[in-house]
Amino acid sequence: LADVSKIATDDYVGFTFFVGCMAMMAASAFFFLSMNDFDKKWKTSILVSGLITFIAAVHYWYMRDYWAAFEESPTFFRYVDWVLTVPLMCVEFYLILKVAGARKSLMWKLILASVVMLVTGYFGEAVYNTGSGPAVWGLISGIAYFYIVYEIWLGSAKKLATEAGGAVLKAHKLLCWFVLVGWAIYPLGYMAGTPGWYDGLANLGLNMDVIYNIGDAINKIGFGLVVYGAAIAARDKN
Amino acid sequence: LADVSKIATDDYVGFTFFVGCMAMMAASAFFFLSMNDFDKKWKTSILVSGLITFIAAVHYWYMRDYWAAFEESPTFFRYVDWVLTVPLMCVEFYLILKVAGARKSLMWKLILASVVMLVTGYFGEAVYNTGSGPAVWGLISGIAYFYIVYEIWLGSAKKLATEAGGAVLKAHKLLCWFVLVGWAIYPLGYMAGTPGWYDGLANLGLNMDVIYNIGDAINKIGFGLVVYGAAIAARDKN
Ligand SMILES: CC1=C(/C=C/C(C)=C/C=C/C(C)=C/C=O)C(C)(C)CCC1
Ligand SMILES: CC1=C(/C=C/C(C)=C/C=C/C(C)=C/C=O)C(C)(C)CCC1
Repeated sequence: LADVSKIATDDYVGFTFFVGCMAMMAASAFFFLSMNDFDKKWKTSILVSGLITFIAAVHYWYMRDYWAAFEESPTFFRYVDWVLTVPLMCVEFYLILKVAGARKSLMWKLILASVVMLVTGYFGEAVYNTGSGPAVWGLISGIAYFYIVYEIWLGSAKKLATEAGGAVLKAHKLLCWFVLVGWAIYPLGYMAGTPGWYDGLANLGLNMDVIYNIGDAINKIGFGLVVYGAAIAARDKN
Repeated sequence: LADVSKIATDDYVGFTFFVGCMAMMAASAFFFLSMNDFDKKWKTSILVSGLITFIAAVHYWYMRDYWAAFEESPTFFRYVDWVLTVPLMCVEFYLILKVAGARKSLMWKLILASVVMLVTGYFGEAVYNTGSGPAVWGLISGIAYFYIVYEIWLGSAKKLATEAGGAVLKAHKLLCWFVLVGWAIYPLGYMAGTPGWYDGLANLGLNMDVIYNIGDAINKIGFGLVVYGAAIAARDKN
């Protein structure tokens, strides 16, 4: 018997899971197939962009079916996905700043903060998810998030980017905006999906999964395209 | 258990789903494997042609099983597919005209119009699909469609193509015909599958899915082959 299930025509959450899944697959094909047009430095960055969307494609494939089967939010798989992709995005920051002399310690600091952000977020969303649990764990997660924002916008990463200039500085700035604005979509989804002082948000009729799916499309594919654009800019200049 | 189901020998709709699926897969292999024969500019265009057929291949795989399992039109998945592939076709127009100085704003205008066309079409086909719903939403969708036709046939895109001349102009003209004639297949399928003043069409015995499947084969594979042909022409001239 075929591995398909019926989907209601007004299942917009399901729609975003399916579109997201396919968009991630197509983006991976795009990054993997075009990485060889660039020199070594940028090639690795584009490869990592492809890994991020590829990891997401596999998880979306699963989450899409999970949603179709149970009409239930696949929180578990989201965090499996994020705990791999978010650290890889930290690696991207490091790779881009490597020419400017970035050290591995910068990368590890960012990775550590991102893991703290996700583990505490998971506690609030899936484990201690009643009473004040979500608000408290969400706050800790948010602090780790702001540490990342600080480090790339004002900390040592910013200094390195300024020194490098050119395509590197432009890419770094754009990625900084992704982290500040694009990543902020996730706490919104979290607040829409968990109880807390922010319950007013849930009443806006926002759906947590739709928000997360839009966030993932912007942050994974968009993030990768910024890196791709920077590689093109660097290539055309030479 | 094997992932197959019995298919009636006179299930012509199923036949076109299976043929379409395989044709899309073969076309993707063709575009992906030949893209490296061309210089950077055309390579990206051929890669995007491959992405379009690849996205379709994945969705046809699903739709083919959906049809085999439920003997029901997989409208939902068609729109998931179109909402990704039609904007990518707009990207193709932009990529081809980039040498002639096309700006990103042209691409975004076309993408926006295509999304409006598809979202309103989905409303008419799957959500407000009784009474005058399909006719009204179809009309709005049609207006967005004609905006695209206008923009590429007579608007700024046409001017750029004329300036570029050569292989670019020829490819642009051919793609314009695809949009005018090939894309017009879809409103036909829509009218065959929804109630409205055009009900006479349905009585011709046309089947919506067969029409959509033929349209997809022409517009996705044919469109890609035009781009491929232009790349060959440009290469032979140098
Ligand atoms: C601040 C904060 C959160 C932040 C999550 C973020 C920022 C996730 C980013 C994910 C990305 C970028 C994935 C993509 O590829 C949580 C965990 C929702 C919990 C509530 C507080
Ligand atoms: C005008 C119009 C439509 C146009 C659809 C088109 C033009 C779809 C094109 C799809 C392509 C090119 C897919 C392939 O790759 C709808 C939505 C049926 C609704 C009725 C009015």
